[in-house]
Amino acid sequence: MQLPAIPPLSAEARQRAQARLDDLTKPLGSLGRLEEIAAQVAAITANPLPELPKKAAILMAADHGVVAEGVSAYPQEVTAQMVANFARGGAAMSVLSRHVGAELVIVDIGVAQDLPPLPGVVSRKVAYGTRNFAQGPAMTREEAERAVAVGLEVVQEVIRRGAGLIALGDMGIGNTTASTAILAAFSGRPVPELVGRGTGIDDARLAKKIRAIESALALNRPDAGDAWDVLTKVGGLEIAGLAGVAIGAAAARCPVIVDGFIAGAAALVAVGLAPAVRDYLLASHLSAEPGHRLMLELLGLKPILVMDMRLGEGTGAALAMPIVEAALKILREMATFSEAGVSTKEA
Amino acid sequence: MQLPAIPPLSAEARQRAQARLDDLTKPLGSLGRLEEIAAQVAAITANPLPELPKKAAILMAADHGVVAEGVSAYPQEVTAQMVANFARGGAAMSVLSRHVGAELVIVDIGVAQDLPPLPGVVSRKVAYGTRNFAQGPAMTREEAERAVAVGLEVVQEVIRRGAGLIALGDMGIGNTTASTAILAAFSGRPVPELVGRGTGIDDARLAKKIRAIESALALNRPDAGDAWDVLTKVGGLEIAGLAGVAIGAAAARCPVIVDGFIAGAAALVAVGLAPAVRDYLLASHLSAEPGHRLMLELLGLKPILVMDMRLGEGTGAALAMPIVEAALKILREMATFSEAGVSTKEA
Repeated sequence: MQLPAIPPLSAEARQRAQARLDDLTKPLGSLGRLEEIAAQVAAITANPLPELPKKAAILMAADHGVVAEGVSAYPQEVTAQMVANFARGGAAMSVLSRHVGAELVIVDIGVAQDLPPLPGVVSRKVAYGTRNFAQGPAMTREEAERAVAVGLEVVQEVIRRGAGLIALGDMGIGNTTASTAILAAFSGRPVPELVGRGTGIDDARLAKKIRAIESALALNRPDAGDAWDVLTKVGGLEIAGLAGVAIGAAAARCPVIVDGFIAGAAALVAVGLAPAVRDYLLASHLSAEPGHRLMLELLGLKPILVMDMRLGEGTGAALAMPIVEAALKILREMATFSEAGVSTKEA
Repeated sequence: MQLPAIPPLSAEARQRAQARLDDLTKPLGSLGRLEEIAAQVAAITANPLPELPKKAAILMAADHGVVAEGVSAYPQEVTAQMVANFARGGAAMSVLSRHVGAELVIVDIGVAQDLPPLPGVVSRKVAYGTRNFAQGPAMTREEAERAVAVGLEVVQEVIRRGAGLIALGDMGIGNTTASTAILAAFSGRPVPELVGRGTGIDDARLAKKIRAIESALALNRPDAGDAWDVLTKVGGLEIAGLAGVAIGAAAARCPVIVDGFIAGAAALVAVGLAPAVRDYLLASHLSAEPGHRLMLELLGLKPILVMDMRLGEGTGAALAMPIVEAALKILREMATFSEAGVSTKEA
């Protein structure tokens, strides 16, 4: 599969943005990450003074065969029920995307049942969920490629409609299990160190979750040097789709806000498939899911928010959107020392 | 001086808010701090389903006699110049309060020079700055009380005009020195452990800053058990004013978002003067100023944002405002499991 080319960031735009940031009426560097974000978006968009972008959140939903191992506290039908809840505007991500003024694009990329037509839901089903990866590969290579292609196409369409800032969101009962397996595959760290309680499982289910992931890794032997192999063997369809979204956004010079643990797994896959994606990513929050800290380290990303959240859906990424906008307004709207007649630092 | 009575939080409103949060279509507790904030605002306002509040940021500006010790990288006139910059809309806090839709109320409570009339700037000058506290008390007890009274009056007026969520902001060259002295007085910890580079001072100025604070503590001997004493001896007029704002807001059942290190020092003073204030406070960000972590521990507050910011002005508090709103919208707008027809957790 041919992935789109990803341009390098613009060092010149970054430099010019940084020069302006350094001349604004505040001590040098005193807005910390806000300045870093502004300079990064300038470099991503190759524009030293980026416009305030239209915002979109792309939420991919899919099911996971590994739920047969008893790894989740919720029944599989919740994935489909939540898609309907997103469409009706009652889910957390519905509320938060309205709050921040982002278009919410919901994609059925692999829900295990047929869904009725729902407003705002794009039907791009690649399969009725993955297979149980504790007993074999989660999907075929062809399915993985089709799911990544769906992500590429969806984000291209969203960008064509005007979006310039993309949040990644997920829904899928069982998907912390897949994401932990991906993290274990890429990092080589022991599963018990990485695994968390997902939606809130008890000790018995936690033991099953660890066993399922360890079996999957032992049986499928995903190759950490081959992101396609990891994705195919222990991934998920929404994770593949979100990896495609990240790659497609980067190819179009569009910044991507990564949500928590599941979107982070998708980002790991995306960077594995196309390393240049990394420069286009912004982390939103540090999840309560224990493996998330290592995941962000592997991605080289620093979270903005620390809120003990562990819901997914893109909720953390949505909360970070007004902060990215704030960074751009600082760059665009603050006065410089000379404009404001403010004395600069003493020698 | 008689401080206003602060009502206890409503345990009933908190309980009812929590019961609703627990019934919303998400795993129990999975929105973490967002849920805690929603429940806290319910308890503060004694309303299980709080309205979205009007927002205001109160930015108090004052000068500090201790700048005579060479503790700051910027000349004292910058305080007055920045007040003009706030009024013209060019400062970081001007940009961020516009961004989040908060009214910005700027108060000259102790700038060292007379200011021309400026739009949006309230003139409530208690003195032309504090005295150099390395050589004696920063202010008289009467000045401290008048400055706290200014804060009480300003916030009462802002609340009368409809505000229901208050951010604390500061401007004052030299005020990290005063705030570090306050933190050292209350915590008893050694000054070198707490001190930071403020606006970005070099090693020589840092040594002067440590010496000035150590001299001030040795000479004035502020009593950690008496917040009036600490405020009078090593405080600042804007810090006193912001302590008054926090107390006045709490007395009116209004949540207060604390900014960084200076607003945190004001919060320490406020809690010292009126311990019940604590329950009304929300921390916004973890400042890059090294003493801030201990300050938040003393206040019992957890930051939401970690952005390496160290500007003050209320900039961190402004960025936290949309997150507080998000918490309230989650409480008000999300669907419950039964409304949405989503299956609950398996037994």
